[in-house]
Parts: sequence; structure tokens; C-alpha cells
Amino acid sequence: MAHTADGLLNIGVIGLGRGFALMAPTFRADPRCRLVAAADPRPEARTRFEAEFSGRAYDDAEALCADPTVNLVYIASPHQHHAAQAIAAARAGKHVLVEKPMALEPSACRAMIAAAREAGVHLIVGPSHGFDASIAKAAELIATGDYGAVRMAQALNYTDFLYRPRRPEELDTAQGGGVVFSQGAHQIDVIRRLVGSPVTRVRAQVGAWDPARPADGAYTAFLSFANGAAASLTYSGYGRYDTDELMGWIGETGRPKNPAAYGAARRRLSSGAEGTLKAERAYGGAGADLPPAEHHEHFGPIIVSCERADLRPLADGVLVYGDEKPQLHKLAAPTVPRKEVIDQAWGAVIEGRAPLHTGEWGLANLEVCLAILRSSAEGREIDLPA
Amino acid sequence: MAHTADGLLNIGVIGLGRGFALMAPTFRADPRCRLVAAADPRPEARTRFEAEFSGRAYDDAEALCADPTVNLVYIASPHQHHAAQAIAAARAGKHVLVEKPMALEPSACRAMIAAAREAGVHLIVGPSHGFDASIAKAAELIATGDYGAVRMAQALNYTDFLYRPRRPEELDTAQGGGVVFSQGAHQIDVIRRLVGSPVTRVRAQVGAWDPARPADGAYTAFLSFANGAAASLTYSGYGRYDTDELMGWIGETGRPKNPAAYGAARRRLSSGAEGTLKAERAYGGAGADLPPAEHHEHFGPIIVSCERADLRPLADGVLVYGDEKPQLHKLAAPTVPRKEVIDQAWGAVIEGRAPLHTGEWGLANLEVCLAILRSSAEGREIDLPA
Repeated sequence: MAHTADGLLNIGVIGLGRGFALMAPTFRADPRCRLVAAADPRPEARTRFEAEFSGRAYDDAEALCADPTVNLVYIASPHQHHAAQAIAAARAGKHVLVEKPMALEPSACRAMIAAAREAGVHLIVGPSHGFDASIAKAAELIATGDYGAVRMAQALNYTDFLYRPRRPEELDTAQGGGVVFSQGAHQIDVIRRLVGSPVTRVRAQVGAWDPARPADGAYTAFLSFANGAAASLTYSGYGRYDTDELMGWIGETGRPKNPAAYGAARRRLSSGAEGTLKAERAYGGAGADLPPAEHHEHFGPIIVSCERADLRPLADGVLVYGDEKPQLHKLAAPTVPRKEVIDQAWGAVIEGRAPLHTGEWGLANLEVCLAILRSSAEGREIDLPA
Repeated sequence: MAHTADGLLNIGVIGLGRGFALMAPTFRADPRCRLVAAADPRPEARTRFEAEFSGRAYDDAEALCADPTVNLVYIASPHQHHAAQAIAAARAGKHVLVEKPMALEPSACRAMIAAAREAGVHLIVGPSHGFDASIAKAAELIATGDYGAVRMAQALNYTDFLYRPRRPEELDTAQGGGVVFSQGAHQIDVIRRLVGSPVTRVRAQVGAWDPARPADGAYTAFLSFANGAAASLTYSGYGRYDTDELMGWIGETGRPKNPAAYGAARRRLSSGAEGTLKAERAYGGAGADLPPAEHHEHFGPIIVSCERADLRPLADGVLVYGDEKPQLHKLAAPTVPRKEVIDQAWGAVIEGRAPLHTGEWGLANLEVCLAILRSSAEGREIDLPA
């Protein structure tokens, strides 16, 4: 197992794209992290990485995995590369933090889990909104038992996901594109953490309503859980109604959102070549850097009904609606964005504590994503393996 | 078929309880209506009715049905009496407006439908929130085809239903109590009108979380429709989170709601004998009369996703979220509350136009309610009869 003398997470990044651009503020701000290496096919991204972090930049993921200074590989490449890269990193003795969905097939997830186990390294699937501070707080409140058992949960998210700049495969569900793999992975992660029990059955319908962006862009799903709870999850990425209205116009990444910018994603998309627009949002691109987030991240409106209270995780806390009054359990403002991701990685790699977002956890999220797609395709409820 | 010389709806009311208290402002305000008779076992309600409306008051529904001045019987008695009273009214040649749920068994609904058909009278199931002006407007906008087909719908409603004063049978699902029969009937009505297609399959979970109020108090349901759309419907009557927050704090009946009154239903319930509290909300009771409603009625947040727009019916209009901008289709303020109910009754009784909310429509709503209960009890998806 990889350790380094300085006692830090010495991170090697595979993929300096949008995922890394969204994690970079965390790595910059969290003193437990040091970015020592990166791999990316784009020379300009490598140059920028070397200049900013004084790390080594490789054009090839295998070379990065062989770098002896790296003890944690963060895999932020396109979905279809996750499995092979995670296995290579584990075999090189590195701990692995891999973006969701960890892979597109359960067999690939199992191979990743086995590789990590054999190498004695941790495999953590993240970041995702199941890490969010308000979700952790709500789960902690539920776990006190003060509100009785979780019985019902509701998650909505209406965004412009489908009109953000995409690579061609991101618009093809068969290649891991669409909202079920990318956004369902968040919503399922959040709801599983709150309900605290395995998903047993899934009934869902998936929608692909724009022939010009043919991946699935919406779904609504009914989930049954082993503890008897049920949840309804709904997502639309078609860029019309925006549920951030119900979150005080704080956006997913914890930054204020301007309601007057309605339709901005569609307009931006028609303003230039999609590949160029995509590159602008990747690390080093003109549109990659965001102002500091004053609020925690969130994934849209959620209502968890326990026997004796409803809980609503918000960007700045958790509202608990009891019998007599609502009570806000306020969160301190974020110091390091997505600090919770580093908490899990640090706990695992440095302190040897098992993370919540293990490979098994990520596999279970993927199983639900696949069941959503299958339930819709077959028009029936899908049983999940116990 | 009953007609009267004055060309008005000459209405006989069965049951001067809460249902009538909520319809009385309509009857008072709509010049097309005249209340000519009522039947109720409570002498004080009959006395008040006679004094207010100069109508005849009977202690018995059969006597009311025999009254030759009545051409429309409005049945607002407890659910379990609807079928027998509707059949008696139809056989006496009266048109029938019956509260939802029209009955508790499909066989009873069919007998009501047959009785009305044989007598050549109209059977209308209402009022319910499927009549609401914003729902009618949204359905009309969808029917233009401008937004493409309806693909997905979402309905939420979190209220204090279970803590309003109840008769014992209203807290027993087997006797027609609980939120599925009383409130599901609204939500299903609304969503069926918006989706515009028969429900084919139902997966649902029902919750009964308060042993002191043992009827079902919450549900979440996944509905499939013949036109390929799917909808998620969620309701909680446990008096905690209140979705009227998402409706600009305008309550279900179109009146402003004070968020500071959180928990009022539970507190009121513990302030006295439940039977007394129930009577106060019935016609003639101290708590029955409400100030005029400045907004239209609604049944909580609803989002209907068509292929090219999301529609949100609100208390004062319909917000249509297109690709470029949201557009509010504003409704004129209500002149007569629940005017839409009288529109359907007038259209049917006086002008001979078939109403939307026929007995067959009400039966289809009931079939979905029953499928929700059955899906939850059996833990599986339920096919509805075609």
C-alpha cells in the first residue's frame, strides 16, 4: 500500500477535464492534498497543470500509475475508461478515487473491487452528491433514531444537463451517456445514504425527447428498499423548469444562480462548435474557473419522511419538520469545497478507516441505474440482486 | 329528466357537513344555482339551511330525492353513503353531482353509472381539484400540441390532512378513510386530466405511521399511462413539511396561508373532543365560513413535462417553461369560487353537454386509488383493466 513520508494525500489525476476542473478548488484548498502528477492527452492541459501545481504531467495513464510519488490516483476520465484505469492504478499499489459512475457494467465494477482488494488499496467512488454536507448531516440526524424509521423519500432535480457541451458518446446511453448514468448516479447515491438500506426493486421510465441530443434526458423512478421504505426519484436535464428555484436559487455547486439566465445552456450551445465549448469548461479552459462557493453543494429538492419528522437537506443545513415546529440544523459555511470527499479519502488512505463510498457502494448505485434503464425498456418492475 | 321552469340548477344537497361548507360559497355566488332543499340528520344544520337559503330541509335523503323542485342532487355525505344515495337520486329522475370518491368499490360505481344511464340523467363526480382553473388551462395548453406529447408528470402534496378533525371511519382505510381515497382521488384526477390518457399500471407504497390515527396518511405512486407517459405522485398528510411553500403560500382553497401557523392542525386537535371540532367545520359551525378566496384552488406542486416544454399549474395561472423563456399564462381572478364545477353541471343539466367528470371518469380515478392500496399491500405492480 502506497504511503508517503510527508503524510499527505499525494494525488495523481487521470483526466484534466470538467470533472477535474470541478475538483481543483478542493485540491487547491485542502492542506491534506498535494497534486503531484496528472495524465491527459491534451498538451495545453498538461502545461497548465505543471505550471500551477509543479507536478509531473504524463500523456499516458499508465505512466502516471507508475509514478512512485503518487499514493492516490483520482480518475476523472470519461466513464468508459474508469474500469481499466482503476485496475491499473490498484495493481500499481495506488489507492483509487474514481468518478461516478465507477463503470458501466457490474462485471467491470467487480473487477475493480477485486483488483483493489488484491492490492490492499482503498477504492473510493466519488465525488458525488451523496458526499454533500447536508446529506451527511441528514443521515446523521436520521441515525439518531429520534424521528423513527425512514418510510418515504422524494428527490427531484430539473436541470439543463443535456444542453451542457458534450462529447458524442455522452449523448449515447449505450456508451454511458445520458442522465441515468451521470445524474441518476448522484440522486441514487443521495437517497441510498438517507434511507440507509439496500434498494430491492425498481420501476422507472426514462425519456429521450430531443432527437438532436438522443441520450436519455429524463427519468422518473420508484425505488423499494429492504427496510420497507420507498422513494420516488425524478430528473429532467432538458433545461426548462429549474428546481434550484426551490433551493433558494443556490445552484448545484453551492454558488448563487441568476434566474434571469434562463435558457443560457441552450443559447451557449448554439454559439459555437460543441467540442470547443466543451474544452472551455475543462481544466485550463476559459470557462473552467468558478468563483468560490459560499454554500454547500446539493442535488436539488429532497424530502425524507420518517415516522415522526420530515427532513429537507438544503444548501446550508437540514430543515427538520417535527410535530410542533420546523428546526434548521445549520451547517457551517464550507471552508474547503467538497471537503467531505477528502475526508473519506484521508480517512481511508491515511487513517485506515473504511470509506462509505466503497467500490461495493458504487456498484450498488450502478445496479440501480441499470435497473432504471431496464425497467423503462421492458416496461416492468426490476428485482435487484440481494 | 328533471328540468325546472326557471332554467336554473335547482339543487338539493344531501349532507350539510364539511363538503357542503366548502361548496356553499359557490352556490351562494353563482347565479346559475339555487339551493332549494337539503337533507341532514343534524337539526341545527337544517335550521340554518332553511334560514339562509329559504329551502326545504329534510332529515332523510329519500324525502329530498322525492322533492319535485330539485333537478340536481349534490351528494356530500360520508363516502360510504354515496352509492345508495346517487342511485336513489337518479331513480327519482334527478341529475347527480357526487363528491369524490364516488364510492369505495368499482361495482358500486358501475351501479351508479347504470342507474344514471337508465334514468337518462347526468352523473358528475365532483368537486375535485381536477376541476381547478389552472388544471383546465394547462390541459388546454397541452391539447394545442404546441409543446409535443406529454411524457412525464410529477405531483407532490404535503398537508396536515390526517390531523384535521375526523369521524372514526375516516381513520379506517377499510371504511374509505385515509389519504388514498380522499386525497389520491384529487391527485389522480389532476394528473389524468393533464396526461390525457388512461392509467395502465400502478406501483405504489402507502404509509400509516401514526398508530393514534391508523388510516393511511401518505403514499408515493408510479403511474404508467396508455400514451407512454409516466407520473410520480406523492402525498403526505402528516402535517410536517408543507408544499404550499412551493405555491407562494397560497393554500389549497385559494386563500393565503400563514407559515407561522405551523402545527396548527395538531394543536387544534388536542384542544377538544374531535367530534365537536369536526362539527365546527361543518356547515353552520363556528369554523365553517372562510373569507373569500382571491386565488384559484390548487392541489400542490405539479410539473408536467412535454417534449418541448414543462408546465406548472399554479394558483393564478400556468407557467410554461419553453426553450427560451418561461411564460405565465395568467388566469383572471376567480369571481365565483369553484365556478368550474357549476360550469360542468350547467353544461350537462341545462345545455346537454357531456361533462368531463362523468361516472366513468370517477370510476377510473377509484380504480387507481384501489391499485395504489393493492400495490402497496402486495408489494408489486398492478395492471389496471383496459
